[in-house]
Amino acid sequence: MIVLGVDSGSLCTGYGVVQSDGRLHRALDWGAIRNPPSATQAERLANICKNLREIMRRFSPSILALEGVFYCKNAQSALKLGQVRGVVMMAAVEEGLEVREFSPAEVKLGVTGYGRADKAQVQAMVKAILGLAKPPEPHDAADALALALCALNRQAWDRKVGVR
Amino acid sequence: MIVLGVDSGSLCTGYGVVQSDGRLHRALDWGAIRNPPSATQAERLANICKNLREIMRRFSPSILALEGVFYCKNAQSALKLGQVRGVVMMAAVEEGLEVREFSPAEVKLGVTGYGRADKAQVQAMVKAILGLAKPPEPHDAADALALALCALNRQAWDRKVGVR
Repeated sequence: MIVLGVDSGSLCTGYGVVQSDGRLHRALDWGAIRNPPSATQAERLANICKNLREIMRRFSPSILALEGVFYCKNAQSALKLGQVRGVVMMAAVEEGLEVREFSPAEVKLGVTGYGRADKAQVQAMVKAILGLAKPPEPHDAADALALALCALNRQAWDRKVGVR
Repeated sequence: MIVLGVDSGSLCTGYGVVQSDGRLHRALDWGAIRNPPSATQAERLANICKNLREIMRRFSPSILALEGVFYCKNAQSALKLGQVRGVVMMAAVEEGLEVREFSPAEVKLGVTGYGRADKAQVQAMVKAILGLAKPPEPHDAADALALALCALNRQAWDRKVGVR
């Protein structure tokens, strides 16, 4: 099973592709889609969508793992983040992926065993779990890999208890 | 010049296509893209995008007119609205349209001459300006036509004063 994790942001969107045979997890690709601050919001959205579609077509993941948003500083930042998430979700549905959302605490807990872990701890644990040579950079990519791992763990657990 | 106005909403997204020769405006099409409440948010976004792309390809508008959002009840509703707007903006960029945003007051003022007009007043004025047999339904479609008219008026004004 292959899962694509995406950490949405309009200037920097992290992604991570993880393959699993149910026991061993392997990182196939990770990185960040960056947008110049000079680009309009519409141009940024189109660029994020184009890049994510290419990644989806290259690796054919079956699940998209996204961070569920339960809190935002204000309506303007929520609106902006929502625009990016909307584009990511839509691209996933168009490419036939199932969309799953996880809370930030769930992701940190699943990867580090601690729901309030900081960014460096997440990077270190993602490196260890996936057997990478160094912590994945930027942290947006590490967060995306952590999301993918979270979705894989949930999948394995659901299968064990017979939900899926 | 052809302008597509879109009034974004995850359950009902209004659209209106208006053609203008600089003096006379003609409505080419209008209506609403509806989503079943049972659909997931990702499915709704994909459906809105698919329908808007078809409309863009059918009429080849050069401008997308959207309502700028300057206020939202809370972060959750802003996030949801943002997702729809993100998909609409991205589809426009992909189809080569220029994206313009107008404040609700600007739209009402442009169409009815009054910045705090209600929905029925907007519907009545849109009907009158476009010479329609009856007020456009639903009001989301009337709002979308009003947005398109606002963009056309702005364009004419900018040309007069030499901005474009």
